[in-house]
Amino acid sequence: MRQAAPATAAFVPPRRILMGPGPSDVPQRVLEAMARPTIGHLDPAFQAMMEELKVLLRYAFQTENRLTFPVSGPGSVGMELCLVNLVEPGDEVVVCVNGVFGARMLEIVRRCGGVPVVVQDPWGRAVDVNKVEDALRAHPKARLVTFVHAETSTGAQSDAAALAAVAQRHGALTVMDCVTSLGGTPVLIDAWGIDAAYSGSQKCLSCTPGLAPVTFSERAVERVRARATPVQSWFMDLNLVLGYWGGEGRRTYHHTAPINPLYGLHEALRMLAEEGIEQAWARHRAMHEALKAGLAGLGLQFVVPESERLPQLNAVFVPTGVDDAAVRARLLQEFDLEIGAGLGEYAGKVWRIGLMGHACRRENVEYCLQALQRVLARH
Amino acid sequence: MRQAAPATAAFVPPRRILMGPGPSDVPQRVLEAMARPTIGHLDPAFQAMMEELKVLLRYAFQTENRLTFPVSGPGSVGMELCLVNLVEPGDEVVVCVNGVFGARMLEIVRRCGGVPVVVQDPWGRAVDVNKVEDALRAHPKARLVTFVHAETSTGAQSDAAALAAVAQRHGALTVMDCVTSLGGTPVLIDAWGIDAAYSGSQKCLSCTPGLAPVTFSERAVERVRARATPVQSWFMDLNLVLGYWGGEGRRTYHHTAPINPLYGLHEALRMLAEEGIEQAWARHRAMHEALKAGLAGLGLQFVVPESERLPQLNAVFVPTGVDDAAVRARLLQEFDLEIGAGLGEYAGKVWRIGLMGHACRRENVEYCLQALQRVLARH
Repeated sequence: MRQAAPATAAFVPPRRILMGPGPSDVPQRVLEAMARPTIGHLDPAFQAMMEELKVLLRYAFQTENRLTFPVSGPGSVGMELCLVNLVEPGDEVVVCVNGVFGARMLEIVRRCGGVPVVVQDPWGRAVDVNKVEDALRAHPKARLVTFVHAETSTGAQSDAAALAAVAQRHGALTVMDCVTSLGGTPVLIDAWGIDAAYSGSQKCLSCTPGLAPVTFSERAVERVRARATPVQSWFMDLNLVLGYWGGEGRRTYHHTAPINPLYGLHEALRMLAEEGIEQAWARHRAMHEALKAGLAGLGLQFVVPESERLPQLNAVFVPTGVDDAAVRARLLQEFDLEIGAGLGEYAGKVWRIGLMGHACRRENVEYCLQALQRVLARH
Repeated sequence: MRQAAPATAAFVPPRRILMGPGPSDVPQRVLEAMARPTIGHLDPAFQAMMEELKVLLRYAFQTENRLTFPVSGPGSVGMELCLVNLVEPGDEVVVCVNGVFGARMLEIVRRCGGVPVVVQDPWGRAVDVNKVEDALRAHPKARLVTFVHAETSTGAQSDAAALAAVAQRHGALTVMDCVTSLGGTPVLIDAWGIDAAYSGSQKCLSCTPGLAPVTFSERAVERVRARATPVQSWFMDLNLVLGYWGGEGRRTYHHTAPINPLYGLHEALRMLAEEGIEQAWARHRAMHEALKAGLAGLGLQFVVPESERLPQLNAVFVPTGVDDAAVRARLLQEFDLEIGAGLGEYAGKVWRIGLMGHACRRENVEYCLQALQRVLARH
């Protein structure tokens, strides 16, 4: 006796304007690219596209790192892949925590058997470079420093160049989370000397979620090759992934790459190259200024001090007496506008307004301000 | 000084007929579903679709398991997720190996700190149930039996019902790889009493690659909840994933789900439900019979004995004196037809002809036979 076939209708999603912490609005060009015919992951035509993807990602990361590719999983897999490869059991790791994603890195370092040295900073603030230097002085054997460049949970941006310089002075490698920064604000892997970085496809790159661009310096690759213990994850073991993404010649099978989403990422990165990365940074900055002025006019207060603020993720306090969830629900239902809720200790207290990639447009800024004004006025 | 923007053309893939070991041809309906507008992963409209996806997957797996959902990663992540949750360091695990994917399970069990008891069977043959019973008798503390239902590297199908029954008699849970079987040949999770199973989106479900449907029995969920040690992977820890996919009510953020590929999977599963799963199994069987007759006419020999053969993956020996790679290249270049190469010890010796999902059609069978005949005749 078989189970009966369920009857379901085709899923036709509503059209939303995505101004939360990601996913951001995906341009029609990217959606159309994703709908092109699927081909095999070992097809020469697909492999030629993979080579272009690597070149386009090197541009986005501003790096010449040979090992630069999109991991077949969301940003969290990119995070875990960087850490499981670069942390060995017993390694001291300086882990900077100033929000949800720094705390997630800490959790993963622990699961890798690393011995974390936590540098804690307040939510809504950048990582304090001096505290990191103190931690490295106190723990001269620390082999790695991990930090979040753009804390998606708070909207704070840390000084990645200074953090990388401190790590280098003390002989430690760096792992940087640039999920929310890549494509929206300068990410200069080579100029800063970052050893490993991961991002996500669905923020300022405006592709659909599900892919995690990563890049590794030669020093990081050597560290992975010189490990005394095997990487605990088979899927994330760079030594194995390298056979598929690393070489320039014939590829060996590792896993079946997510073909169509990679078409989408290729197109999204082409759009970034067409605009020019500096122009994209300038656009995010300009739209942030416009949004900031409007939010001030509505009496909303930013969480992060101006000098540490990310242009693409604007966290503001929910005004006293206002029902967070009710406002977001009305924005979604009446205006098809998504803004983000607070995470962790900011749950119910903060809204996160994203201006990421394709969503970072003048009309979205104005629409969001108008919608917020109307909903708050009726509250 | 910034790196210059690379100039690239839009990627327009060739149209191929995908008769390898996956990905298989993706129907236009699924491609179009993937190109619908992206919405947020916490949007109520998306969450309603997630509930439907779970219902549709339960139908595909023929199960009532509450915990049935698509993992945000390829089939290999589904494999690793099942094993990292169900294996604790020091656990004895009976691992059946009769091809590449059984060997991969063994590798992952080792990386989880499990103590594998390997049941080795020849490539191209089913797992020998008696040997599994012997292994369980010899290792009464073994807590888990793992096996591949449909070995994609050889085209052999094992007797999952018998393997599950043996495991149950000895008090062990089962993990089953049904990447290549789901939707193409009967997979009866509840009737067989399988505790954990994983599949892939890109085989007989004919969605694009990148998602791994999984299902867990209540006993498996209890085993995970009762672990003495934390799961080594953060991303794959079911205790955390449950907050997003497991509940019926309000979802908590874990990672950003790959929205658009999930639209595609929803549509692919709707097509399976429309056809009816028994009709889909019958179609795979009938097309296999037609292909088998044609391959015999070309003098090609099957790798797997008839009684252990998968209808959807037809592995045949490359005839003596024929250049494997040259034939596949000509099929691709002259006929836009992809068939699969041999893996591992079958590299260069075997072709794998897939009849999976949407690719399992009469016209494909005839086209493949014609193309093979022409290329082999000129060889």
